[in-house]
Amino acid sequence: MALTMKGAPVASAITEALLPRVKALQLRGIVPCLAILRVGERADDLAYERGALKRCEKVGIAVRQFLLPADVSQETLLETIGTINRDDDIHGCLMFRPLPAHLDEHAICAALSPEKDVDGITAGSMAKIYSGTGSGYSPCTAQSCMELLRYYGIEVSGKRVAVLGRSLVIGRPAAMLLMAADGTVTVCHTKTQDLPWIVREAEIVVVAIGHAEAIGPAYFTSGQTVVDIGINWSEAKQKLVGDVDYERVEPLVAAITPVPSGVGSVTTAVLCKHVIEAAENAASVKK
Amino acid sequence: MALTMKGAPVASAITEALLPRVKALQLRGIVPCLAILRVGERADDLAYERGALKRCEKVGIAVRQFLLPADVSQETLLETIGTINRDDDIHGCLMFRPLPAHLDEHAICAALSPEKDVDGITAGSMAKIYSGTGSGYSPCTAQSCMELLRYYGIEVSGKRVAVLGRSLVIGRPAAMLLMAADGTVTVCHTKTQDLPWIVREAEIVVVAIGHAEAIGPAYFTSGQTVVDIGINWSEAKQKLVGDVDYERVEPLVAAITPVPSGVGSVTTAVLCKHVIEAAENAASVKK
Repeated sequence: MALTMKGAPVASAITEALLPRVKALQLRGIVPCLAILRVGERADDLAYERGALKRCEKVGIAVRQFLLPADVSQETLLETIGTINRDDDIHGCLMFRPLPAHLDEHAICAALSPEKDVDGITAGSMAKIYSGTGSGYSPCTAQSCMELLRYYGIEVSGKRVAVLGRSLVIGRPAAMLLMAADGTVTVCHTKTQDLPWIVREAEIVVVAIGHAEAIGPAYFTSGQTVVDIGINWSEAKQKLVGDVDYERVEPLVAAITPVPSGVGSVTTAVLCKHVIEAAENAASVKK
Repeated sequence: MALTMKGAPVASAITEALLPRVKALQLRGIVPCLAILRVGERADDLAYERGALKRCEKVGIAVRQFLLPADVSQETLLETIGTINRDDDIHGCLMFRPLPAHLDEHAICAALSPEKDVDGITAGSMAKIYSGTGSGYSPCTAQSCMELLRYYGIEVSGKRVAVLGRSLVIGRPAAMLLMAADGTVTVCHTKTQDLPWIVREAEIVVVAIGHAEAIGPAYFTSGQTVVDIGINWSEAKQKLVGDVDYERVEPLVAAITPVPSGVGSVTTAVLCKHVIEAAENAASVKK
């Protein structure tokens, strides 16, 4: 039976470690504060928002919600980001994506102040994750994958790692973080040939393709560690499932994250960690 | 016998295509101009500079040389970059690296105006190469690798690609460009285990590790395309050699770049292309 790498204990450990830092900020009169910027009412966003609100409350982070209709204009959205940028009491901003198609997502992401970019959407954060130099934050989900591996004692250095998916939100930043941890990383995508063969050769497999249970037992072999970042609604099963066919893959491999309750449970804790860091940085600049 | 992928015809084709663009700029009274910023007198830098000067003359690009002593202060170097930034007649800047150890290379790279960053050293260019969005230029050597593959009709899409080396100057940007071209890219480095095995599995191999003839026949098999970016001085042979043991690898593979006269010959042509682009962009902004 595989080790089930649940997210909850990882999130708890991260949260634990944040509490004294929050206390230290409070002693200086600073309440760390996250702005949540949501356009429309997508079910995924609402679910994540509930989780974030709960986690922030636990940690002691104030949340300011900026909620805009799905048909909001580019101008109004940019003005809202300007408001967030100018407000010294806000330390970080989480903006749900993808944005509705009529909005220029690239320009909007670029408008956020780099020092409040706690989910890694600005050019500065991207340059940081790519180059390892400069300042910025990693996208929370990609960072969660690293926190999870660390917590469960899975060594990345020298290991062969397959990342399935090359999105800017997950696949690409996860690949850069895994490479920075000295993994030998192969990024696979829709044009990749012989995918099952490549995945079987890897010791660590990170899956973020967004297709319910698409990656089955043919892709795996004994001894592997599997991190499933997908969250999909299965009509057939009437429940949330990952990108990996958990029931049939779990018996084959050494360790695997469940969905739900795996990586997704760590993400809001990482978000909180980034907000605390941003608040500490803002405080040290002011000082 | 393998196809010898020489750089000269690739450089000529790139240069050819630039001439009408230079003419069009001249008709508008614009002489494209490259600033070359060199600290000290390293033999490698001097050799590359000679090549760049020759290529620029061929294309019709003016060159302004900014030559500073190896013990230059951070302040003076930053002032020099400021001068380059403010001069509207300069469209691009090539700064040789690595800089001497007493200088803060990251801060110095960050000081260059993004629109003059024709060798991809600023955060904006890095974010562009990582994300595929925004504006910026790829490092010339990494870009040369792509130009060379394109010229010789080597399809990257769907192919397994091994990149040996993860430097910010070559390995990492080459990996991102190859992935953007839909290759399935594995980045290998000093911590990679079973390197020969991984390299043999790849259809395209890009080597940039900086060790003379370190990658020998044990790493290769029939049908592979090999791009050797290394340029090293061999004491034993008293000549320049690549990272690949050309004499013993060439008979095994389908296509290979020689050293010298391979990728290195393409780089200055790519540099010129970037300068022309920068001059065109500056002209369209002014208009």
